[in-house]
Amino acid sequence: MTMELSRSDNLSSNQLINYCLHLADNALILGHRNSEWCGHGPILEQDIAISNISLDLIGHARNFYQYAAQLINQTTNQPVNLSTEDTLAYFRDAPDFKNILLVEQPNGDWAETILRQFFFSAYQYLLFEKLQESKDEQISAIATKSLKEITYHRRWSSEWIIRLGDGTEESRERMVKAIDNLWNYTDEMFVPAAYESQMANKGICPDVALLKQSWVKRTTEVFDEATLVIPASSKSSKAGKEGNHSSHLTDILKELQSVARVHPAASW
Amino acid sequence: MTMELSRSDNLSSNQLINYCLHLADNALILGHRNSEWCGHGPILEQDIAISNISLDLIGHARNFYQYAAQLINQTTNQPVNLSTEDTLAYFRDAPDFKNILLVEQPNGDWAETILRQFFFSAYQYLLFEKLQESKDEQISAIATKSLKEITYHRRWSSEWIIRLGDGTEESRERMVKAIDNLWNYTDEMFVPAAYESQMANKGICPDVALLKQSWVKRTTEVFDEATLVIPASSKSSKAGKEGNHSSHLTDILKELQSVARVHPAASW
Repeated sequence: MTMELSRSDNLSSNQLINYCLHLADNALILGHRNSEWCGHGPILEQDIAISNISLDLIGHARNFYQYAAQLINQTTNQPVNLSTEDTLAYFRDAPDFKNILLVEQPNGDWAETILRQFFFSAYQYLLFEKLQESKDEQISAIATKSLKEITYHRRWSSEWIIRLGDGTEESRERMVKAIDNLWNYTDEMFVPAAYESQMANKGICPDVALLKQSWVKRTTEVFDEATLVIPASSKSSKAGKEGNHSSHLTDILKELQSVARVHPAASW
Repeated sequence: MTMELSRSDNLSSNQLINYCLHLADNALILGHRNSEWCGHGPILEQDIAISNISLDLIGHARNFYQYAAQLINQTTNQPVNLSTEDTLAYFRDAPDFKNILLVEQPNGDWAETILRQFFFSAYQYLLFEKLQESKDEQISAIATKSLKEITYHRRWSSEWIIRLGDGTEESRERMVKAIDNLWNYTDEMFVPAAYESQMANKGICPDVALLKQSWVKRTTEVFDEATLVIPASSKSSKAGKEGNHSSHLTDILKELQSVARVHPAASW
Protein backbone atom coordinates (compact mmCIF):
# COMPACT_ATOMS: atom_id res chain seq x y z
CA MET A 1 0.00 0.00 0.00
CA THR A 2 2.56 2.51 1.15
CA MET A 3 5.12 1.42 -1.41
CA GLU A 4 2.58 2.05 -4.15
CA LEU A 5 1.77 5.45 -2.79
CA SER A 6 5.37 6.59 -2.79
CA ARG A 7 5.98 5.36 -6.30
CA SER A 8 2.82 6.49 -7.97
CA ASP A 9 2.50 9.88 -6.45
CA ASN A 10 5.48 11.89 -5.29
CA LEU A 11 3.47 14.76 -3.92
CA SER A 12 1.34 12.39 -1.94
CA SER A 13 4.43 10.62 -0.69
CA ASN A 14 5.86 13.95 0.44
CA GLN A 15 2.70 14.69 2.36
CA LEU A 16 2.84 11.28 3.99
CA ILE A 17 6.43 11.99 5.01
CA ASN A 18 5.34 15.36 6.41
CA TYR A 19 2.57 13.66 8.31
CA CYS A 20 4.93 11.10 9.84
CA LEU A 21 7.35 13.87 10.78
CA HIS A 22 4.49 15.76 12.41
CA LEU A 23 3.62 12.73 14.55
CA ALA A 24 7.27 12.05 15.35
CA ASP A 25 8.11 15.68 16.18
CA ASN A 26 5.15 15.98 18.57
CA ALA A 27 6.37 12.94 20.45
CA LEU A 28 10.07 13.83 20.42
CA ILE A 29 9.63 17.39 21.62
CA LEU A 30 7.20 16.52 24.40
CA GLY A 31 9.40 13.58 25.37
CA HIS A 32 12.37 15.91 25.57
CA ARG A 33 10.47 18.47 27.62
CA ASN A 34 9.36 15.80 30.09
CA SER A 35 12.89 14.44 30.27
CA GLU A 36 13.98 17.78 31.71
CA TRP A 37 12.26 16.61 34.90
CA CYS A 38 14.33 13.42 34.98
CA GLY A 39 16.18 13.54 38.30
CA HIS A 40 14.50 16.82 39.34
CA GLY A 41 10.99 15.80 40.32
CA PRO A 42 9.78 16.63 43.81
CA ILE A 43 8.81 13.01 44.46
CA LEU A 44 10.97 10.04 43.42
CA GLU A 45 7.98 7.96 42.37
CA GLN A 46 6.60 10.67 40.09
CA ASP A 47 10.04 11.52 38.79
CA ILE A 48 10.21 7.95 37.52
CA ALA A 49 6.68 8.14 36.13
CA ILE A 50 7.24 11.28 34.06
CA SER A 51 10.59 9.91 32.85
CA ASN A 52 8.92 6.69 31.76
CA ILE A 53 6.34 8.69 29.81
CA SER A 54 9.27 10.54 28.28
CA LEU A 55 10.80 7.29 27.09
CA ASP A 56 7.48 6.04 25.73
CA LEU A 57 7.12 9.23 23.71
CA ILE A 58 10.67 9.06 22.37
CA GLY A 59 9.86 5.46 21.43
CA HIS A 60 6.83 6.64 19.41
CA ALA A 61 9.00 9.28 17.77
CA ARG A 62 11.56 6.66 16.75
CA ASN A 63 8.87 4.54 15.08
CA PHE A 64 7.58 7.44 12.99
CA TYR A 65 11.07 8.74 12.16
CA GLN A 66 12.11 5.27 11.01
CA TYR A 67 9.11 5.08 8.75
CA ALA A 68 9.63 8.62 7.43
CA ALA A 69 13.29 7.81 6.74
CA GLN A 70 12.27 4.73 4.81
CA LEU A 71 9.83 6.78 2.71
CA ILE A 72 12.40 9.52 2.10
CA ASN A 73 15.01 7.01 1.00
CA GLN A 74 12.54 5.38 -1.40
CA THR A 75 11.52 8.73 -2.85
CA THR A 76 14.94 10.24 -3.32
CA ASN A 77 16.51 6.97 -4.37
CA GLN A 78 19.96 8.12 -3.26
CA PRO A 79 22.60 5.48 -2.64
CA VAL A 80 24.38 7.67 -0.09
CA ASN A 81 23.31 10.17 2.57
CA LEU A 82 20.53 7.92 3.68
CA SER A 83 18.00 9.34 6.08
CA THR A 84 17.74 7.63 9.44
CA GLU A 85 15.76 8.25 12.59
CA ASP A 86 18.82 10.05 13.92
CA THR A 87 19.36 12.38 10.95
CA LEU A 88 15.69 13.34 11.18
CA ALA A 89 15.83 14.00 14.92
CA TYR A 90 19.22 15.67 15.10
CA PHE A 91 19.92 17.33 11.75
CA ARG A 92 16.77 19.24 10.89
CA ASP A 93 16.32 22.87 11.92
CA ALA A 94 13.40 24.47 13.73
CA PRO A 95 11.43 25.52 10.57
CA ASP A 96 11.46 21.86 9.47
CA PHE A 97 9.82 20.70 12.69
CA LYS A 98 6.08 20.12 12.46
CA ASN A 99 5.15 19.71 16.11
CA ILE A 100 2.28 21.66 17.60
CA LEU A 101 3.24 24.65 19.73
CA LEU A 102 1.72 23.05 22.84
CA VAL A 103 4.50 20.48 23.20
CA GLU A 104 7.33 23.02 22.99
CA GLN A 105 5.93 25.17 25.81
CA PRO A 106 8.24 25.33 28.85
CA ASN A 107 7.71 22.89 31.70
CA GLY A 108 6.75 25.63 34.14
CA ASP A 109 5.86 24.01 37.44
CA TRP A 110 4.60 20.48 38.01
CA ALA A 111 0.99 21.59 37.44
CA GLU A 112 1.82 22.99 34.01
CA THR A 113 3.81 19.90 32.99
CA ILE A 114 0.91 17.68 34.03
CA LEU A 115 -1.66 19.78 32.24
CA ARG A 116 0.36 19.85 29.01
CA GLN A 117 0.68 16.06 29.21
CA PHE A 118 -3.03 15.65 29.84
CA PHE A 119 -4.06 17.90 26.94
CA PHE A 120 -1.73 16.02 24.63
CA SER A 121 -2.46 12.49 25.85
CA ALA A 122 -6.23 13.02 25.68
CA TYR A 123 -5.77 14.15 22.07
CA GLN A 124 -3.23 11.47 21.19
CA TYR A 125 -5.55 8.80 22.54
CA LEU A 126 -8.41 9.86 20.26
CA LEU A 127 -6.06 10.26 17.30
CA PHE A 128 -4.30 6.92 17.68
CA GLU A 129 -7.59 5.14 18.22
CA LYS A 130 -8.51 6.30 14.70
CA LEU A 131 -5.03 5.73 13.30
CA GLN A 132 -5.42 2.06 14.14
CA GLU A 133 -7.79 1.97 11.18
CA SER A 134 -5.41 3.89 8.90
CA LYS A 135 -5.15 2.65 5.32
CA ASP A 136 -1.39 2.89 5.78
CA GLU A 137 -0.38 -0.37 7.41
CA GLN A 138 2.74 0.97 9.09
CA ILE A 139 0.92 3.86 10.71
CA SER A 140 -1.85 1.54 11.77
CA ALA A 141 0.66 -0.88 13.31
CA ILE A 142 2.51 1.86 15.22
CA ALA A 143 -0.78 3.29 16.50
CA THR A 144 -1.96 -0.08 17.71
CA LYS A 145 1.32 -0.75 19.45
CA SER A 146 1.38 2.66 21.17
CA LEU A 147 -2.19 2.86 22.37
CA LYS A 148 -1.65 0.95 25.60
CA GLU A 149 1.06 3.39 26.68
CA ILE A 150 -1.04 6.38 25.71
CA THR A 151 -3.96 5.01 27.68
CA TYR A 152 -1.70 4.95 30.73
CA HIS A 153 -0.39 8.49 30.08
CA ARG A 154 -3.95 9.77 29.83
CA ARG A 155 -5.04 8.08 33.03
CA TRP A 156 -1.93 9.13 34.94
CA SER A 157 -2.23 12.79 33.92
CA SER A 158 -6.01 12.81 34.55
CA GLU A 159 -5.42 11.59 38.09
CA TRP A 160 -2.85 14.32 38.70
CA ILE A 161 -5.18 17.03 37.32
CA ILE A 162 -7.80 15.92 39.83
CA ARG A 163 -5.31 15.64 42.67
CA LEU A 164 -3.97 19.14 42.07
CA GLY A 165 -7.20 20.88 41.05
CA ASP A 166 -9.12 19.41 43.95
CA GLY A 167 -6.11 19.59 46.30
CA THR A 168 -4.70 22.42 48.41
CA GLU A 169 -5.39 26.07 47.74
CA GLU A 170 -1.90 26.45 46.31
CA SER A 171 -2.06 23.42 44.03
CA ARG A 172 -5.43 24.60 42.73
CA GLU A 173 -4.11 28.09 42.03
CA ARG A 174 -1.19 26.59 40.11
CA MET A 175 -3.57 24.49 38.06
CA VAL A 176 -5.71 27.53 37.21
CA LYS A 177 -2.61 29.45 36.15
CA ALA A 178 -1.46 26.49 34.03
CA ILE A 179 -4.82 26.40 32.22
CA ASP A 180 -4.45 30.12 31.60
CA ASN A 181 -1.00 29.61 30.10
CA LEU A 182 -1.73 26.56 27.95
CA TRP A 183 -5.34 26.71 26.84
CA ASN A 184 -4.63 28.85 23.77
CA TYR A 185 -2.31 26.15 22.43
CA THR A 186 -4.93 23.41 22.46
CA ASP A 187 -6.89 24.41 19.38
CA GLU A 188 -3.97 23.72 17.04
CA MET A 189 -4.54 20.00 17.61
CA PHE A 190 -7.88 20.31 15.79
CA VAL A 191 -6.91 22.62 12.93
CA PRO A 192 -5.54 20.45 10.11
CA ALA A 193 -2.42 21.41 8.20
CA ALA A 194 -2.46 20.78 4.44
CA TYR A 195 -0.70 17.43 4.82
CA GLU A 196 -3.24 16.30 7.41
CA SER A 197 -6.18 17.21 5.17
CA GLN A 198 -4.65 15.34 2.29
CA MET A 199 -3.92 12.26 4.40
CA ALA A 200 -7.46 12.41 5.79
CA ASN A 201 -8.82 12.40 2.23
CA LYS A 202 -6.86 9.23 1.55
CA GLY A 203 -8.10 7.50 4.68
CA ILE A 204 -4.64 7.54 6.24
CA CYS A 205 -5.64 9.70 9.20
CA PRO A 206 -8.88 11.04 10.65
CA ASP A 207 -10.10 14.59 10.19
CA VAL A 208 -8.66 16.07 13.37
CA ALA A 209 -11.41 18.68 13.52
CA LEU A 210 -13.82 15.84 14.25
CA LEU A 211 -11.82 14.79 17.33
CA LYS A 212 -12.44 18.09 19.10
CA GLN A 213 -15.85 17.29 20.50
CA SER A 214 -14.70 14.08 22.20
CA TRP A 215 -11.60 15.82 23.49
CA VAL A 216 -13.61 18.67 25.02
CA LYS A 217 -15.97 16.13 26.57
CA ARG A 218 -13.14 14.17 28.21
CA THR A 219 -11.41 17.35 29.35
CA THR A 220 -14.65 18.68 30.82
CA GLU A 221 -15.21 15.45 32.74
CA VAL A 222 -11.73 15.52 34.26
CA PHE A 223 -11.92 19.26 34.97
CA ASP A 224 -15.33 18.82 36.63
CA GLU A 225 -13.90 16.26 38.99
CA ALA A 226 -10.95 18.56 39.62
CA THR A 227 -13.29 21.52 40.25
CA LEU A 228 -11.66 23.34 37.34
CA VAL A 229 -13.32 25.18 34.49
CA ILE A 230 -12.61 25.11 30.76
CA PRO A 231 -12.03 28.60 29.31
CA ALA A 232 -14.70 29.88 26.97
CA SER A 233 -12.56 30.34 23.88
CA SER A 234 -9.19 29.45 22.39
CA LYS A 235 -6.98 31.05 19.75
CA SER A 236 -7.04 29.17 16.47
CA SER A 237 -3.70 28.43 14.82
CA LYS A 238 -1.75 25.82 12.94
CA ALA A 239 1.57 27.64 13.19
CA GLY A 240 3.66 24.85 14.68
CA LYS A 241 2.38 22.22 12.28
CA GLU A 242 3.58 24.42 9.44
CA GLY A 243 7.01 25.09 10.94
CA ASN A 244 6.39 28.48 12.56
CA HIS A 245 7.74 27.96 16.04
CA SER A 246 8.52 29.98 19.14
CA SER A 247 12.08 30.50 20.31
CA HIS A 248 11.39 27.72 22.82
CA LEU A 249 11.85 25.18 20.05
CA THR A 250 15.14 26.69 18.98
CA ASP A 251 16.34 26.38 22.56
CA ILE A 252 15.17 22.78 22.80
CA LEU A 253 16.88 21.80 19.56
CA LYS A 254 20.10 23.51 20.60
CA GLU A 255 20.21 21.21 23.60
CA LEU A 256 18.79 18.12 21.94
CA GLN A 257 20.98 18.23 18.87
CA SER A 258 24.25 19.58 20.24
CA VAL A 259 26.03 16.30 20.95
CA ALA A 260 25.04 14.74 17.62
CA ARG A 261 26.06 17.85 15.68
CA VAL A 262 29.45 18.19 17.32
CA HIS A 263 30.34 14.69 16.09
CA PRO A 264 28.32 14.27 12.90
CA ALA A 265 30.62 11.61 11.51
CA ALA A 266 31.06 9.62 14.70
CA SER A 267 29.80 6.09 14.62
CA TRP A 268 28.79 6.43 18.25
CA MET B 1 15.10 -10.90 61.55
CA THR B 2 15.47 -7.24 60.81
CA MET B 3 12.92 -6.21 63.39
CA GLU B 4 14.85 -8.07 66.06
CA LEU B 5 18.09 -6.46 64.99
CA SER B 6 16.72 -2.96 65.25
CA ARG B 7 15.18 -3.55 68.65
CA SER B 8 17.97 -5.46 70.29
CA ASP B 9 20.89 -3.46 69.09
CA ASN B 10 20.64 0.22 68.27
CA LEU B 11 24.21 0.60 67.09
CA SER B 12 23.82 -2.35 64.78
CA SER B 13 20.57 -0.92 63.50
CA ASN B 14 22.31 2.37 62.76
CA GLN B 15 24.95 0.56 60.78
CA LEU B 16 22.29 -1.31 58.85
CA ILE B 17 20.64 2.03 58.08
CA ASN B 18 24.00 3.41 56.94
CA TYR B 19 24.53 0.39 54.76
CA CYS B 20 21.12 0.78 53.10
CA LEU B 21 21.78 4.48 52.56
CA HIS B 22 25.13 3.58 50.98
CA LEU B 23 23.43 1.22 48.52
CA ALA B 24 20.63 3.71 47.83
CA ASP B 25 22.95 6.70 47.40
CA ASN B 26 25.16 4.83 44.91
CA ALA B 27 22.13 4.06 42.79
CA LEU B 28 20.49 7.48 43.10
CA ILE B 29 23.58 9.48 42.23
CA LEU B 30 24.57 7.31 39.27
CA GLY B 31 20.95 7.29 38.12
CA HIS B 32 20.89 11.07 38.28
CA ARG B 33 24.17 11.38 36.40
CA ASN B 34 22.89 9.10 33.63
CA SER B 35 19.64 11.01 33.48
CA GLU B 36 21.61 14.08 32.44
CA TRP B 37 21.94 12.33 29.06
CA CYS B 38 18.17 11.96 28.78
CA GLY B 39 17.27 13.77 25.58
CA HIS B 40 20.91 14.62 24.78
CA GLY B 41 22.34 11.35 23.54
CA PRO B 42 23.93 11.26 20.10
CA ILE B 43 21.75 8.32 19.05
CA LEU B 44 18.04 8.04 19.90
CA GLU B 45 18.26 4.32 20.63
CA GLN B 46 21.13 4.73 23.08
CA ASP B 47 19.57 7.80 24.60
CA ILE B 48 16.62 5.61 25.53
CA ALA B 49 18.92 2.82 26.77
CA ILE B 50 20.91 5.03 29.16
CA SER B 51 17.69 6.66 30.38
CA ASN B 52 16.19 3.26 31.08
CA ILE B 53 19.26 2.32 33.09
CA SER B 54 18.80 5.58 34.93
CA LEU B 55 15.25 4.64 35.86
CA ASP B 56 16.31 1.14 36.95
CA LEU B 57 18.92 2.65 39.25
CA ILE B 58 16.50 5.18 40.72
CA GLY B 59 14.17 2.22 41.26
CA HIS B 60 16.90 0.41 43.25
CA ALA B 61 17.50 3.58 45.24
CA ARG B 62 13.82 3.84 46.10
CA ASN B 63 13.79 0.27 47.45
CA PHE B 64 16.74 0.85 49.74
CA TYR B 65 15.53 4.30 50.85
CA GLN B 66 12.13 2.84 51.72
CA TYR B 67 13.77 0.17 53.81
CA ALA B 68 16.12 2.66 55.48
CA ALA B 69 13.16 4.93 56.25
CA GLN B 70 11.32 2.04 57.85
CA LEU B 71 14.34 1.20 60.01
CA ILE B 72 14.82 4.85 61.00
CA ASN B 73 11.19 5.22 61.97
CA GLN B 74 11.36 2.05 64.08
CA THR B 75 14.53 3.18 65.80
CA THR B 76 13.55 6.74 66.57
CA ASN B 77 9.95 5.81 67.39
CA GLN B 78 8.74 9.31 66.57
CA PRO B 79 5.06 9.78 65.80
CA VAL B 80 5.77 12.77 63.54
CA ASN B 81 8.50 13.77 61.09
CA LEU B 82 8.56 10.32 59.65
CA SER B 83 11.36 9.45 57.30
CA THR B 84 10.34 8.52 53.78
CA GLU B 85 12.21 7.67 50.60
CA ASP B 86 11.77 11.32 49.60
CA THR B 87 13.08 12.87 52.81
CA LEU B 88 16.16 10.63 52.51
CA ALA B 89 16.76 11.53 48.86
CA TYR B 90 15.93 15.22 49.00
CA PHE B 91 16.63 16.46 52.52
CA ARG B 92 20.05 15.13 53.42
CA ASP B 93 23.19 17.17 52.71
CA ALA B 94 26.35 16.05 50.94
CA PRO B 95 28.26 14.87 54.06
CA ASP B 96 25.36 12.51 54.82
CA PHE B 97 25.63 10.83 51.44
CA LYS B 98 27.49 7.54 51.43
CA ASN B 99 27.94 6.91 47.72
CA ILE B 100 31.33 6.04 46.30
CA LEU B 101 33.14 8.85 44.50
CA LEU B 102 33.00 6.97 41.18
CA VAL B 103 29.28 7.56 40.71
CA GLU B 104 29.45 11.32 41.31
CA GLN B 105 32.12 11.85 38.64
CA PRO B 106 30.96 14.06 35.73
CA ASN B 107 29.52 12.39 32.65
CA GLY B 108 32.35 13.58 30.43
CA ASP B 109 31.82 12.22 26.94
CA TRP B 110 29.90 9.09 25.98
CA ALA B 111 32.99 6.91 26.50
CA GLU B 112 33.40 8.10 30.07
CA THR B 113 29.72 7.62 30.88
CA ILE B 114 29.84 4.10 29.49
CA LEU B 115 33.01 3.22 31.37
CA ARG B 116 31.65 4.53 34.66
CA GLN B 117 28.52 2.44 34.12
CA PHE B 118 30.55 -0.65 33.30
CA PHE B 119 32.82 -0.32 36.35
CA PHE B 120 29.79 0.10 38.56
CA SER B 121 27.56 -2.56 36.97
CA ALA B 122 30.33 -5.17 37.02
CA TYR B 123 30.75 -4.45 40.74
CA GLN B 124 27.04 -4.24 41.47
CA TYR B 125 26.48 -7.57 39.76
CA LEU B 126 29.01 -9.34 42.01
CA LEU B 127 27.71 -7.56 45.09
CA PHE B 128 24.03 -8.24 44.48
CA GLU B 129 24.73 -11.86 43.63
CA LYS B 130 26.04 -12.20 47.18
CA LEU B 131 23.36 -9.97 48.69
CA GLN B 132 20.77 -12.47 47.48
CA GLU B 133 22.07 -14.67 50.31
CA SER B 134 21.95 -11.83 52.86
CA LYS B 135 20.67 -12.74 56.30
CA ASP B 136 18.53 -9.63 56.05
CA GLU B 137 15.43 -10.71 54.18
CA GLN B 138 14.58 -7.30 52.78
CA ILE B 139 18.06 -6.76 51.36
CA SER B 140 18.04 -10.26 49.95
CA ALA B 141 14.65 -9.66 48.30
CA ILE B 142 15.70 -6.34 46.75
CA ALA B 143 18.94 -7.87 45.47
CA THR B 144 17.11 -10.79 43.88
CA LYS B 145 14.60 -8.48 42.24
CA SER B 146 17.31 -6.15 40.87
CA LEU B 147 19.75 -8.69 39.52
CA LYS B 148 18.06 -9.14 36.15
CA GLU B 149 18.32 -5.41 35.44
CA ILE B 150 21.92 -5.27 36.60
CA THR B 151 22.79 -8.20 34.36
CA TYR B 152 21.46 -6.18 31.43
CA HIS B 153 23.36 -3.03 32.48
CA ARG B 154 26.57 -5.02 32.70
CA ARG B 155 26.09 -6.62 29.30
CA TRP B 156 25.04 -3.36 27.64
CA SER B 157 28.00 -1.41 28.99
CA SER B 158 30.42 -4.26 28.19
CA GLU B 159 29.28 -4.21 24.58
CA TRP B 160 29.81 -0.47 24.36
CA ILE B 161 33.31 -0.73 25.88
CA ILE B 162 34.22 -3.22 23.17
CA ARG B 163 32.56 -1.18 20.43
CA LEU B 164 34.42 1.99 21.43
CA GLY B 165 37.75 0.45 22.45
CA ASP B 166 37.95 -1.68 19.33
CA GLY B 167 36.31 1.00 17.16
CA THR B 168 37.70 4.07 15.41
CA GLU B 169 40.95 5.75 16.39
CA GLU B 170 38.99 8.56 18.01
CA SER B 171 36.63 6.33 19.98
CA ARG B 172 39.60 4.32 21.24
CA GLU B 173 41.44 7.46 22.33
CA ARG B 174 38.37 8.60 24.21
CA MET B 175 38.14 5.25 25.94
CA VAL B 176 41.80 5.39 26.98
CA LYS B 177 41.28 8.89 28.37
CA ALA B 178 38.18 7.73 30.24
CA ILE B 179 40.14 4.89 31.87
CA ASP B 180 42.76 7.43 32.86
CA ASN B 181 40.13 9.65 34.48
CA LEU B 182 38.13 6.98 36.28
CA TRP B 183 40.45 4.16 37.25
CA ASN B 184 41.53 5.74 40.52
CA TYR B 185 37.93 5.74 41.70
CA THR B 186 37.43 2.01 41.29
CA ASP B 187 39.31 0.81 44.35
CA GLU B 188 36.83 2.42 46.74
CA MET B 189 34.34 -0.29 45.80
CA PHE B 190 36.58 -2.87 47.49
CA VAL B 191 37.64 -0.95 50.61
CA PRO B 192 34.98 -1.51 53.26
CA ALA B 193 33.67 1.33 55.39
CA ALA B 194 33.04 0.55 59.06
CA TYR B 195 29.34 -0.15 58.44
CA GLU B 196 30.17 -2.58 55.64
CA SER B 197 32.63 -4.51 57.81
CA GLN B 198 30.07 -4.75 60.57
CA MET B 199 27.33 -5.91 58.22
CA ALA B 200 29.73 -8.44 56.69
CA ASN B 201 30.41 -9.84 60.16
CA LYS B 202 26.69 -10.35 60.63
CA GLY B 203 26.25 -12.08 57.29
CA ILE B 204 24.19 -9.22 55.90
CA CYS B 205 26.63 -8.37 53.12
CA PRO B 206 29.78 -9.91 51.65
CA ASP B 207 33.28 -8.69 52.41
CA VAL B 208 33.66 -6.34 49.44
CA ALA B 209 37.44 -6.85 49.43
CA LEU B 210 36.77 -10.40 48.31
CA LEU B 211 34.85 -9.20 45.24
CA LYS B 212 37.86 -7.46 43.76
CA GLN B 213 39.45 -10.47 42.12
CA SER B 214 36.32 -11.42 40.18
CA TRP B 215 35.78 -7.80 39.21
CA VAL B 216 39.31 -7.44 37.87
CA LYS B 217 38.89 -10.71 35.98
CA ARG B 218 35.69 -9.58 34.30
CA THR B 219 37.13 -6.14 33.55
CA THR B 220 40.24 -7.69 32.06
CA GLU B 221 38.17 -9.94 29.81
CA VAL B 222 36.12 -7.05 28.47
CA PHE B 223 39.17 -4.81 28.12
CA ASP B 224 41.04 -7.58 26.29
CA GLU B 225 38.27 -7.84 23.75
CA ALA B 226 38.22 -4.04 23.49
CA THR B 227 42.04 -3.97 23.03
CA LEU B 228 42.29 -1.84 26.18
CA VAL B 229 44.64 -2.24 29.11
CA ILE B 230 43.96 -2.10 32.84
CA PRO B 231 46.23 0.37 34.65
CA ALA B 232 48.80 -1.13 37.00
CA SER B 233 47.68 0.52 40.20
CA SER B 234 44.82 2.45 41.74
CA LYS B 235 44.53 4.88 44.61
CA SER B 236 42.96 3.36 47.70
CA SER B 237 40.21 5.35 49.42
CA LYS B 238 36.89 5.05 51.14
CA ALA B 239 36.22 8.78 51.22
CA GLY B 240 32.81 8.82 49.57
CA LYS B 241 31.46 5.95 51.65
CA GLU B 242 32.30 7.97 54.74
CA GLY B 243 30.73 11.19 53.48
CA ASN B 244 33.81 12.98 52.17
CA HIS B 245 32.71 14.06 48.70
CA SER B 246 33.94 16.22 45.86
CA SER B 247 32.16 19.42 44.91
CA HIS B 248 30.55 17.40 42.12
CA LEU B 249 28.17 15.90 44.65
CA THR B 250 27.21 19.30 46.02
CA ASP B 251 26.39 20.38 42.47
CA ILE B 252 24.33 17.25 41.83
CA LEU B 253 22.36 17.66 45.05
CA LYS B 254 21.70 21.32 44.33
CA GLU B 255 19.99 20.27 41.13
CA LEU B 256 18.42 17.07 42.40
CA GLN B 257 16.98 18.55 45.57
CA SER B 258 16.05 22.07 44.49
CA VAL B 259 12.41 21.46 43.56
CA ALA B 260 11.68 19.41 46.66
CA ARG B 261 13.35 21.93 48.96
CA VAL B 262 11.56 24.95 47.52
CA HIS B 263 8.22 23.36 48.45
CA PRO B 264 9.03 21.19 51.49
CA ALA B 265 5.44 21.19 52.72
CA ALA B 266 3.75 20.63 49.37
CA SER B 267 1.80 17.43 49.03
CA TRP B 268 2.91 17.23 45.41
